[in-house]
Order: sequence, then C-alpha cells, then structure tokens
Amino acid sequence: MASELIRTDLGSSVKTLELRSDRVLVLDQTLLPNELRYVEIRTVAKMAEAIETMIVRGAPAIGIAGAYGLVLGLRETLKSDPTRLREQLKDDAVRLNATRPTAVNLAWALERMLRVAAQTAESELLHVLTREAEAIHREDVDACRAMGDFGAALVPPGAGIMTHCNAGALATGGYGTALGVIRSAFSQDSGIHVYADETRPRLQGARLTSWELVQDGIPVTVVCDNMSGSLMRAGKVQMVVVGADRITANGDTANKIGTYNLALIAKAHNVPFYVAAPMSTIDMSLETGDAIPIEERHPGEIYRVGDEQLCADGAGYFNPAFDVTPAYLITAIITEKGVVRPEYRQNLPHLFL
Amino acid sequence: MASELIRTDLGSSVKTLELRSDRVLVLDQTLLPNELRYVEIRTVAKMAEAIETMIVRGAPAIGIAGAYGLVLGLRETLKSDPTRLREQLKDDAVRLNATRPTAVNLAWALERMLRVAAQTAESELLHVLTREAEAIHREDVDACRAMGDFGAALVPPGAGIMTHCNAGALATGGYGTALGVIRSAFSQDSGIHVYADETRPRLQGARLTSWELVQDGIPVTVVCDNMSGSLMRAGKVQMVVVGADRITANGDTANKIGTYNLALIAKAHNVPFYVAAPMSTIDMSLETGDAIPIEERHPGEIYRVGDEQLCADGAGYFNPAFDVTPAYLITAIITEKGVVRPEYRQNLPHLFL
Repeated sequence: MASELIRTDLGSSVKTLELRSDRVLVLDQTLLPNELRYVEIRTVAKMAEAIETMIVRGAPAIGIAGAYGLVLGLRETLKSDPTRLREQLKDDAVRLNATRPTAVNLAWALERMLRVAAQTAESELLHVLTREAEAIHREDVDACRAMGDFGAALVPPGAGIMTHCNAGALATGGYGTALGVIRSAFSQDSGIHVYADETRPRLQGARLTSWELVQDGIPVTVVCDNMSGSLMRAGKVQMVVVGADRITANGDTANKIGTYNLALIAKAHNVPFYVAAPMSTIDMSLETGDAIPIEERHPGEIYRVGDEQLCADGAGYFNPAFDVTPAYLITAIITEKGVVRPEYRQNLPHLFL
Repeated sequence: MASELIRTDLGSSVKTLELRSDRVLVLDQTLLPNELRYVEIRTVAKMAEAIETMIVRGAPAIGIAGAYGLVLGLRETLKSDPTRLREQLKDDAVRLNATRPTAVNLAWALERMLRVAAQTAESELLHVLTREAEAIHREDVDACRAMGDFGAALVPPGAGIMTHCNAGALATGGYGTALGVIRSAFSQDSGIHVYADETRPRLQGARLTSWELVQDGIPVTVVCDNMSGSLMRAGKVQMVVVGADRITANGDTANKIGTYNLALIAKAHNVPFYVAAPMSTIDMSLETGDAIPIEERHPGEIYRVGDEQLCADGAGYFNPAFDVTPAYLITAIITEKGVVRPEYRQNLPHLFL
C-alpha cells in the first residue's frame, strides 16, 4: 500500500489506478478526502470486490479496472491451472461484469479484452492482454483530453459551472470527463467557478470532486443536491456538465442518481446541460433509457453516515444508484470525437463511422 | 430532563414542547432519532439558544417557543428587576426574534404577546401572558387539525405522498401542517404511503419525519433529495405536500432549502404541489418572495455529519437554510380557514376577512 499520491503528467494531479506487473495500485476512494491510500490488488476476486464496494468507481475507471482485473486473473491461472487459460478468462470476465450493472464501459472493456484474447495464441496471452488493458487506460486519458478541449469551447467566460457526482480523474484513467471539460476550461480561463453537488447518498461530489479540484487549485463550492434551484435562480450557474454511465441510441443518459433532477432544474432556468462521456459509454444496442438496468444499492448508504444513524428504525428506503435523464433535457453530448447535438438518434451514429 | 416521550391526545403521539409553570420542556430534536430527551428551559437566553441551535425548529413551533420564552423572561424579571417589566419584555422579544429570520411565525407570536401585554396591567402580566402563550399553542394545534381535514380531501385514494423536511408534530404545537394533512388522510385511508426527502443538510426528513411517522404507524420511505424525479417518473408520487416558513401576498413561499427544487420536479411531472401552513405563516406585508430574508447557516452543516468530515479542506460552501418557491408552482395553499388556489394575490386576502 502507498499513502502518497501518485502524481501524473496527465494534466491532473490525481492517479486513480496503475498496473504494476503482478498487481494493480488502486486509490481507495471510500477513504477520501480524509485518508489517501492506495490498495494493492493482486487477484480477480479482490478487483471485483473493489469495484462492488466502490474503492474504485466511475464508469470509465471501472472499465479500466475490469481490464486490469482480467490481466491479474490470467496471472493467477498461469500459476494454478494453465490448461484452462481461456475458460478461466471467460469466467473471470463474467465475475467482473457482475459487479455493477449500469455503466456499460465495464462490459465494453471486458468484451474488448475477450475479443483480443480470441485472436491471440495462448503463449502470447499475458503479454498481449497486458498491452491491451494499458491501451484501454491510455486511450481513456486521451479521450478525456479530447473531450476537455471540445467541451472547453462551450464554457462562457467566467462561468459558474455546476456538476454532479464525480466525473473526474478519479472516475477515469485520469483527467476526467466532466471535470476534464472543467480542467481544460480552467487552463484557459481562471475566472470560472465550480459548484459541486454533494451527491447523496455516497457523497462523491463532496468527498471526491471537492478533493480533486482542490488538488488542482480550481475554485469549488460544495452545495447540497437540493440547492441547485436556488443557485440557478440567483444567476450563479451558466452551464451544467456531468458524466455518464450509459447513453442509449436516442441520447437518453444513465448517470448518478440526481442527474435527472439536476437536468430538470437546469431546463427550468434555461441553463445548458451537457453530458461528457467517451464513446465507450454509448450503447447503440439499446433504443432508449428505459432498457438500462438501474443498480439498487444497500439502504445503509442512506440511513448511515460514518457511525451516525440518520433515520428512525422502522422506516423504509429506496436507493437507486442511477437515474435516466431523457435526451430532451440534454443540450449536447461531448465525446472525444466531437460535440453531438439533438436529434441524437440521427447524430450519434455518425460518431461510429 | 425527561427521556420518555410525552404522549398526547392530539391525534399524534409526539409532544414537542410544553409549558410547566416556571419552565418549558422541549424535545431536543438535534438528538432524534437516536436519543429521546426533553431539555428543561428556564430562561429567555436558553430559549433563544434552543431556537438558534434547532433543539426546537419548525415555523409554528418556534412561534410557540418564542411566546413561552417571553413568559420565562417575565418570571426572570419579576425576580431580578420588577421595575422594568415592560422594558425587559420588549428586550426579550428582540432577543428571541433575532434567533432566526425567515419564519414569520416567530415575529407574529412575539408581536401578539407584546400587543396583549400593552393592554394588560403589570400585576396581571404573568397570568395573562401565560394564558396567551398557551392559547397560541392550543390554536396552533387546532389550526393543524383543521388543515389536516381540508388537506385530506385533496389526497387521492392510496396516494404516494411526498414531503420535504419536517412539517409535523415536531414542527408545530402538535399534529403538524404537511404531516397533519398526512395524518388526517391516513386516518381515512391506510393505503397511502409517504416518501420523505431526507432534506440535507440538517436531515430533518430522515431524522424527524421518519421518526415521527414511525411513532404513528404511518408507512414511510426515506429517499435522498435527489431521488424525487426518479420516483415521480416511476409514477410513485400522486401529490407533494410541504410546510412553509413564510408566504407572501402573491403566494410565493419560503420553506426549507430544497422545496423549490421539489416544486420544479413536481411541475415537470404534473404532480400537484401543496403548501400547508397556518394563517400565522402568511405575511401580507411583503409583496413577493424576493423580500423574504433567507437565513444562511454555518457551512459545518454541510461538510460534517457526526464526526465524519465529508469534504476536502479548501473547498467553499453555500448553505442557505431556505429557498423561495414561486407561486406559479403551488397548486394550492392549505390553511385552517380553507384551501386557497391561485390567483393568490386575489384570494389570500379573503382569508383575513
């Protein structure tokens, strides 16, 4: 375990995860902002657990973590039972894919790894899949940088920019999607200001986004999720930018619970609402957001913070981890290939040509 | 101090505060739902502190607490300096009124007490003001019961009812405004279900509303403030009912932060949005909600829960305790004199005839 930040030259100060031959260093996001600690992960089982417990989270980041998980699994199988290398690889992919259902990047990365494996000789598997996982990681960073540049062009001078959850370096291979846009904008205009929804119940906005932006010296004000209307009515917010866990063919977007509320609030105030996400988040196999599986998580995330019980015994809970923002509320989708505007059903396919 | 609930025959199980000759028992709402404790308050200073620190909160309840505070002050002055009974009474009112600026019920109750005092001989002051404070308390309960009956008629059979913050017995002299409507509805139709916004940052929905409804066996599901859109889109919510801290002549309504967001979300889903509040909450001296003073509270309410720090050092905070919901988002206002619908500027004055 390491307890110092692995600094990067990626344009953000934060390194979320890193493959080091037989292990993956993963920044434990459940401890932030109070403790900075990397955990060393050496097995598929531990990587699956790290994704489930949100030690690593964020759609692009869990895609990369999944790919690295397969590499770790391959190393395990090479030692334990090299005769069933390919079968175990598939089993490992099934295990990793079962961790979290909503973000499509995980399935996308695992499928990409299996596709490459199918075309690779057994003796080359470890080498080739390691390279492929690292490519997935590197391409994600490049995609975030490209999104940042495309997105920065949409930011008005001195804008107040609202964001939800953490779509930052911590949620990706580095740099971030929504926070990538903000990083790029800030590098051109230090007058921008970020309003971060705290993002109940897991508080990724408070715990992670505030921490990540403070690392980079970008001014950030943390607000509760229910204050966005007040802020917008007071004219403090010129745009909203969020990440995504899955975008369907019509532009409907699953993202962290509360994104839909924020999009409605933005619409009511004529504040443009942008989604920043890499192509790997777009799932053209689903027609609309109604088909996206929405993960429900443990109610303890709502009724407890730290050791503090927040609700009465005997109350019920509802804890969906994501919601779906319908396409009509989304001003544009920022990808590494450019900015897509409605009509999405017509315009998204062009990205894949 | 008492650590058992003072049960009532008011149609709710919860007694929030009670005058007992030389002291006021106040249920310490900062400890709920984890600990049930009444604090004994014997001085104006302690009552002011209890209101500031939200040991007692809720617009009607702090009105009653303020009135009781003046009675305690009168007892103090009778002992310490009976020559300046009237001057000290005014000073006490100023002190109590300075505790929290947004809810108008506090100023309303203090003014009513001072008005009665002005018409009362000094020798009668303690007796008459004690009776007046108790009348304010009793009338509030009666008003809540009346609101409950008017409001229950608006509840569809088996409705899912969403509420924000705590506008219950705990926020009033007993029974509640928004939760009074829910109590009355539940007594007629046990098939209703309550969805309680947890209400960051102070979590009155999670801590207080869930506790209060569980006491009375009314089914309640706690959700985070950012889940209302998901719930409404899934068709789970047939109406919203909230309390109020101040209603201006045009129907604009100040209430707990997040009410405005919830009203916008309800509007987007065509879910009726009701405000339940006694006449003492209506401030006809203000034309619109823009004139309502909005209290800002300490950022620690956002960045800390219990002993747990939630945000990075170096982040900024914005912590308005209330917001203003514009009249156009409010389907109707439920008072003890009946249900008022738009155009409020035209219809609210009829209540006062």
